[in-house]
Amino acid sequence: MVECRALYFNGREIRLVEDHRVERDGEVLIKVRLAGICGTDLQILKGYAGFKGVPGHEFVGEVVESDRSDLVGARVVGEINAACGRCDMCSIGLRRHCRSRTVLGIKGRDGAFAEYLRLPVENLHRVPDSVEDERAVFVEPLAAAFEVLEQVHVDPSWSACVVGDGRLANLIAQVLRDRVSRLRVIGKHGRKVGLLRELGIDAVEGVAPGEESSYDLVVEATGRAEGLATALKLVRPRGYLVLKSTIAADYRIDLAKVVVDEVHVVGSRCGPFRPAIRALERGLVDVRRLVDAVHRLEEHREAFASASSPGTLKVLLRP
Amino acid sequence: MVECRALYFNGREIRLVEDHRVERDGEVLIKVRLAGICGTDLQILKGYAGFKGVPGHEFVGEVVESDRSDLVGARVVGEINAACGRCDMCSIGLRRHCRSRTVLGIKGRDGAFAEYLRLPVENLHRVPDSVEDERAVFVEPLAAAFEVLEQVHVDPSWSACVVGDGRLANLIAQVLRDRVSRLRVIGKHGRKVGLLRELGIDAVEGVAPGEESSYDLVVEATGRAEGLATALKLVRPRGYLVLKSTIAADYRIDLAKVVVDEVHVVGSRCGPFRPAIRALERGLVDVRRLVDAVHRLEEHREAFASASSPGTLKVLLRP
Repeated sequence: MVECRALYFNGREIRLVEDHRVERDGEVLIKVRLAGICGTDLQILKGYAGFKGVPGHEFVGEVVESDRSDLVGARVVGEINAACGRCDMCSIGLRRHCRSRTVLGIKGRDGAFAEYLRLPVENLHRVPDSVEDERAVFVEPLAAAFEVLEQVHVDPSWSACVVGDGRLANLIAQVLRDRVSRLRVIGKHGRKVGLLRELGIDAVEGVAPGEESSYDLVVEATGRAEGLATALKLVRPRGYLVLKSTIAADYRIDLAKVVVDEVHVVGSRCGPFRPAIRALERGLVDVRRLVDAVHRLEEHREAFASASSPGTLKVLLRP
Repeated sequence: MVECRALYFNGREIRLVEDHRVERDGEVLIKVRLAGICGTDLQILKGYAGFKGVPGHEFVGEVVESDRSDLVGARVVGEINAACGRCDMCSIGLRRHCRSRTVLGIKGRDGAFAEYLRLPVENLHRVPDSVEDERAVFVEPLAAAFEVLEQVHVDPSWSACVVGDGRLANLIAQVLRDRVSRLRVIGKHGRKVGLLRELGIDAVEGVAPGEESSYDLVVEATGRAEGLATALKLVRPRGYLVLKSTIAADYRIDLAKVVVDEVHVVGSRCGPFRPAIRALERGLVDVRRLVDAVHRLEEHREAFASASSPGTLKVLLRP
C-alpha cells in the first residue's frame, strides 16, 4: 500500500488530495510517469457514468511492486478494462466487454491522475525503449483508433472520411491514412486542420458539395452530437459508419436513412494495444505534435480548462 | 400499352380507377395474378416518401408482352428496384441501391395494385410450377427476410431474437430458425405468437427477466418506434442489431449503449430473390398460414383496414 497525491472527483468537483491510498491487492503497483487527458475524462467531470474517484486512463508508468519480479522496474502501459475472466463475454474472448469489469478511472477503479495506480498483470504491456514517455502515453487512445480496424474489414480500395479534428480524430486519420485509397478529414478548427495537413492528410473545414452518400467508411469522432448527422449524411449505401464519440446525452439519428441505405452503424470504444505500440515503435504515427501542454497535478484547473478548449489537442499530466 | 383497373394514391387518398395506362416502353408487361399488402404500403398511404401513383410491390404475375418471346406466358415474380446499371452503386454490384433507381409502387414507378404492371426484364424471376400463386406472392417479403443473412455473417452457434410478430417478423423467424442455435420471437399479439409456436418457434409475449444484453443477433421487425428500444436492450456487447422497420418518423436510439457495447446496427431493406424462391420450392418456409384474406381491388377499403389491424398478418389483392 502507498499513500500518494491524486486528483479526486467526488461527483461534483475535482481536487488534489495528498492521502490517496493505493492497495496492490494481488495486482501490480505502478508509478505513473505521465498521463493524458481524454474527452471521456472531460465527460466524467460533467457526471458521465456517475464515476467517483480518481479519473485518468491514459498513462505510461513504471512497475514498482508485482508478484512477477521480472516486471519490477519495467516501463509499461496498461489496458484499462479489468476483466473477471469467467463470464460469457470473457469466455468468448471479449474481455474488454466483461460483464463485471472495472475500468481504470472510469468505472469502479481509481485511475491515472495520481502518483500511483494498480492494474492486473495481464493488462500490462512493456513499452519498447525507443518509445519515450511522451509517445507511450498515446498508446491507449491510439489503440482506440486501431479498434476501427478490428471491427470493420477495411477494404484498401475504399474511400474514408473522418469527421472531427480533435485528438482521437487525428489518431484515427493517421491509422487510416495508408489503409484506404482516399482519406479526407472534415474538421472545424483552422489550427487542427492545419496540423492534419502537415501530416500529409487531406483535411478541410466543412463538407464540400457532392460528398453526400459517397464514402465507403465514415468515422464520427467529433465528441459532439452534431457530428453524427454530418457523418451519417456522408456514408454511402451499404457503407460503414463508426461511432467513436461517447456522449453523455442520448441523441437523434435518422434511422430512415440507416434502413433505406442499409448502413452499418458500428459503436466503437477501446482497442487493441499491440498494434498501437508497434505503430509508435515503427514511427508510423506522429503523436508528439499533438501535445499542447504538460502540467503538474496541482495545475489541474489549468490543465482541464486547456483540454476543454476547442483549439487544444492533447494535454498531459506529470504527477 | 394497356388501360386497366388500378388503385391510385393521389397523396391523400387511394381510389379505384378504371383507366390506368401501362406503357411497356421496352420493359416487360405483366398481368398481376396476386399482390400482397405490406407495412410499407400502409406507410405510403400515410404519406411516407411522398409517393403518388399505384402502390404495391409484392406480386406474382404472368408475362403478356416482352422482347424476350420465351418469357411470354411465364409466371414470374419481380425485384422491385429498377436500376440504371451505370452509376457507382450499380458498378459495385449494388443495383438495389442504384442512385437513380425507381422502385415498384414506392418511388417513381407504378406498382402491383393494378391489373397490369411493367418491369425491366432483368428484374424478373420465373416461379417454379410447384410454387402456387398464394405462396409465390411471398417471394418479395421473404427475400427481405433473407437480406439479414446477406448482411450479417450469422454464426450457427449464435442465439437470435426477433422482436415483432407480424408478417415480416414471422418470415424472418422462419428463415433464422434453422440457422442459429437458439431463436426466440418476442411478440405482442396472442394469435400471432400462437401461430409462431405452431411453426415450432419459441415465441413469447414480452421480454423475460435476464434476457437483457444476451442475444448475439437481434432483428427489430415490429414496424413501430417502440420496438427499437426493446431490441437494443436485448443485444449483447459486440452483437448485431438489424433494423427491418421502415418508419416514417425519425426516432431516438440510445447511442451510448451502441458505443460502449460496440453494437453493430445494420439497416436492412430489400433482399435477394433466389434463396426466397428456393426456400418456398423446398417447403422450408410456411407462408400459407399467414394469409388472412384475399380481396378484389374494389374491396380496397376493407383490405387496407384489415391489413392495418394489429391482429392481421397478410392480406392479398386479386385484381
